[in-house]
Amino acid sequence: MSDIGSEDVHERIRQSFARQGAMETLGAELTRISQGVVEIELPFDVKLTQQHGILHAGVISAALDSACSYAAYTVVAADASLLTIEFKVNLLSPGRGDRFLFRGEITKPGSTIIVADGRGYAVGDGPAKLIASMTSTLMVVRGREGITG
Amino acid sequence: MSDIGSEDVHERIRQSFARQGAMETLGAELTRISQGVVEIELPFDVKLTQQHGILHAGVISAALDSACSYAAYTVVAADASLLTIEFKVNLLSPGRGDRFLFRGEITKPGSTIIVADGRGYAVGDGPAKLIASMTSTLMVVRGREGITG
Amino acid sequence: MSDIGSEDVHERIRQSFARQGAMETLGAELTRISQGVVEIELPFDVKLTQQHGILHAGVISAALDSACSYAAYTVVAADASLLTIEFKVNLLSPGRGDRFLFRGEITKPGSTIIVADGRGYAVGDGPAKLIASMTSTLMVVRGREGITG
Amino acid sequence: MSDIGSEDVHERIRQSFARQGAMETLGAELTRISQGVVEIELPFDVKLTQQHGILHAGVISAALDSACSYAAYTVVAADASLLTIEFKVNLLSPGRGDRFLFRGEITKPGSTIIVADGRGYAVGDGPAKLIASMTSTLMVVRGREGITG
Repeated sequence: MSDIGSEDVHERIRQSFARQGAMETLGAELTRISQGVVEIELPFDVKLTQQHGILHAGVISAALDSACSYAAYTVVAADASLLTIEFKVNLLSPGRGDRFLFRGEITKPGSTIIVADGRGYAVGDGPAKLIASMTSTLMVVRGREGITG
Repeated sequence: MSDIGSEDVHERIRQSFARQGAMETLGAELTRISQGVVEIELPFDVKLTQQHGILHAGVISAALDSACSYAAYTVVAADASLLTIEFKVNLLSPGRGDRFLFRGEITKPGSTIIVADGRGYAVGDGPAKLIASMTSTLMVVRGREGITG
Repeated sequence: MSDIGSEDVHERIRQSFARQGAMETLGAELTRISQGVVEIELPFDVKLTQQHGILHAGVISAALDSACSYAAYTVVAADASLLTIEFKVNLLSPGRGDRFLFRGEITKPGSTIIVADGRGYAVGDGPAKLIASMTSTLMVVRGREGITG
Repeated sequence: MSDIGSEDVHERIRQSFARQGAMETLGAELTRISQGVVEIELPFDVKLTQQHGILHAGVISAALDSACSYAAYTVVAADASLLTIEFKVNLLSPGRGDRFLFRGEITKPGSTIIVADGRGYAVGDGPAKLIASMTSTLMVVRGREGITG
């Protein structure tokens, strides 16, 4: 588990998230950081759609991947970085709605390999609707050129 | 296999691709349509990156998912549409480069379920470098409200 | 959801499980059937191992796939059968122990596609240890020759 | 790539395969070893079936996982071992036939992570029929207790 203060972890994740050009492009915000769990939200926008006018599976993947990765940042040392090795996404319901929430959660911490699970929801006035799930495998990286933060 | 003329299929795919707001947001272009194979290309842009400055896995997923889906459009009837059920992506090398090419190819056509495989490459002056692979499962949809094209 | 009495569902699943030659070969038993959840258990046996003497990933996959499939049988009509389209398995810890439990649980019911998640555990005197997870996509099949029960 | 003689690699893989109790249980044989490619074959047996009398998806997974793992053994150093981190299997056609062939092939070698792709076929008098595909992620392991060979 993390050997750095939780405030430092939160700040580190916020700064790293801010460097993700893709998250800004998607209009995504980091809305929750806690031990082993990170949430990202984004509003619906026609610029994020596939041909049927619903959220593109790649956009869902981007948000879930970032949520899972930052969940992993909460369980590694301060000098370690993370790379996604692979993930699987199931699209469970069409991505329709005004706003979406993506939660990444650590299933298995580890010194080399971390496995996280993510869930995506359409959120609004009524109950949240599950739209997608992800299982993601991440590699802990230390001292590799160009891979920091 | 497709029961419509190949010119019609190409035009249908081009129109469907043009409706994908996400592809425009990513700066992606449809560069090849042939029987069972579709290619999409996009230039590197800082707005597509993750925290280490390389292409975000979600952007790679978006381009591969669209390539696999449109490859599937070439093997279904003209009145059928397609929905991605799920996919798995392996990130094989960091997404560094000036330009990227994503190819989707049909592995198993079918009347209900179609399976496609995709490969992503960084392309430039030298040999193309494999950066990612996808296996994608698609469902053939007919006459479902809101799902056409 | 199921339109048949729960006793009938249980009996149907027991009979179907008994027809799975592979489950007998693995020494697996059906130990729990409830709405949307099925559990399968098996004792360790050297005949189920990979080269390091731990449970083979294929054995884990077999037990999780059966658990997920029978969980799906609890949420379909009595005349429907199920086929696994695809699954992903993460091996989280080496499969060491005297006995293993595999639970399949429905994440998303549906009339055509059902998604289930499974977890495998090494169980014994101490706390259960998570060894594997699965996400499985199943297709509901009706009236296809050779595919009943 | 391998730094040991190919005869030694072949012998090492044969010995490791012989230690896999699960392969003997399935009646599987190692039928081809070459640089980056391994094949495993097994005859149909009712003891390997699911409820519809076709090959159980777990049996297919076991054979593909072993084929992919041993393909990876051909591209690592002699003192390294391999652990499967995760895989995805697509069941493309029912596993019917007299005999089955499973081929694992290296897609991306690496010093820590290796990615392999596998294909399963029903083989007999006519043309081979593709029944399944796998993408598998393996971790190269050195000097970990209990993980050798």
